[in-house]
Amino acid sequence: MKDKLTIVKLGGNCMDDEKAMQLFLEGFAAIEGKKILVHGGGKLATRIAEQLGVQSKMIDGRRVTDEHMLDVTIMVYTGLINRKIVAALQTLQVNAIGFSGADGNLIRSGKRSAVPVDYGFVGDPTEVNTSLLEMLLGKNIVPVISPITHDGKGQLLNTNADTVASVIASALSLHLDVHLIFAFDKKGVLENVADENSVIRKLSAQQLLTLQQDGKIHSGMLPKLKAGFDALNGNVSNVTIAHLHALQSNCSTQLVS
Amino acid sequence: MKDKLTIVKLGGNCMDDEKAMQLFLEGFAAIEGKKILVHGGGKLATRIAEQLGVQSKMIDGRRVTDEHMLDVTIMVYTGLINRKIVAALQTLQVNAIGFSGADGNLIRSGKRSAVPVDYGFVGDPTEVNTSLLEMLLGKNIVPVISPITHDGKGQLLNTNADTVASVIASALSLHLDVHLIFAFDKKGVLENVADENSVIRKLSAQQLLTLQQDGKIHSGMLPKLKAGFDALNGNVSNVTIAHLHALQSNCSTQLVS
Repeated sequence: MKDKLTIVKLGGNCMDDEKAMQLFLEGFAAIEGKKILVHGGGKLATRIAEQLGVQSKMIDGRRVTDEHMLDVTIMVYTGLINRKIVAALQTLQVNAIGFSGADGNLIRSGKRSAVPVDYGFVGDPTEVNTSLLEMLLGKNIVPVISPITHDGKGQLLNTNADTVASVIASALSLHLDVHLIFAFDKKGVLENVADENSVIRKLSAQQLLTLQQDGKIHSGMLPKLKAGFDALNGNVSNVTIAHLHALQSNCSTQLVS
Repeated sequence: MKDKLTIVKLGGNCMDDEKAMQLFLEGFAAIEGKKILVHGGGKLATRIAEQLGVQSKMIDGRRVTDEHMLDVTIMVYTGLINRKIVAALQTLQVNAIGFSGADGNLIRSGKRSAVPVDYGFVGDPTEVNTSLLEMLLGKNIVPVISPITHDGKGQLLNTNADTVASVIASALSLHLDVHLIFAFDKKGVLENVADENSVIRKLSAQQLLTLQQDGKIHSGMLPKLKAGFDALNGNVSNVTIAHLHALQSNCSTQLVS
């Protein structure tokens, strides 16, 4: 039987809220066995970019990462957020080490094509260094991974954190029984956005299509669900969308094939 | 016989100069065997702090680290500088992983007393996780260490990079034959600051005292030399002050007891 591994992807909206973050980290620390944390960082990077006079250019709700914005995301994601999470986890007896995709060649990616839309220094993961992760997990080390990857030619690239979590989960499924949790500020995927308790307990790709056609799934949720179904198709045992303060709750959305 | 380990401390002045940095990293990559890089980051942090409207308060040439300046140093040292060095080393076939002192509980420190001078969130190292470093070195991983430590209670602390290099070197001397190199923009300690070629080839603590009394040693050099002699007294085999582009040159200053 394979060892169990829990991978939690933490959404960006609580990075600014110390209390919400602490509560999340306590829940994460309580997860038994091998675990990995992947974090985003959206709003904080936008705020610091504003303070630095770097414009946040968006196309269809997606950030364009020019050279200056890339430096901001490196600073904020791999420095400020990543190291603060690590320091906090150390106080909770979790032996965390923070990573970008360049560290130990953890996640290699390709710069996204400028056609049809040029998002700038954005990477799509192509390779995960699973032997490094397995080595660390075997020594009770908990990798805390920020969504900055590298192309192996010295270029760091801003990368979608849901995608990072998904590709890591799939890559590690060969030797481990992986449970992937997308944690955010709702209890799961809601059938009615206005009703916090309308959590869809089980969601298949087929149902998702129907909900999408009915206009019931919010657009920001779609890339997350795509990353989730990709992981499910990549042999990840269990994919859930859960509240960041109730990671192991049954009241969450489980993706099913 | 103990395995050889080279620890290079890179001074802050070349962080902004891409070409000088690349040349340094090529020299570092050429060092054979186990190695560790410790980097500073001074001027870049000051510039980004200015852009963010954070005042750099100095007392006797030393930076005071308030809450806002601490965030800037975390972002710049452990994020921007650290991850860019790691990405560049990966292209040079050096399997680097970037660390702050919180990662893997690598360097624990105590917040410096506010008496007689309150330097703010500044730490003095108290403990090095040598078993983590030895494990990584044994796997041909090259730790790249930024001068931010933690107190084990969740607080990150700005720390002098020369001191970080010195305490790591001393701590690892128990099982390794350590060579510590302080790399900066001169060929070594100069007897005459105006003459680039007046390198003092061998320098003892006794000679240093004399040079100090004669007013020949520049004040900024003193903390570096103190860290160097501390390492020598801590059983580090070899401590040199060398040019960042000639790490292994004989034309450098060797500290002797």
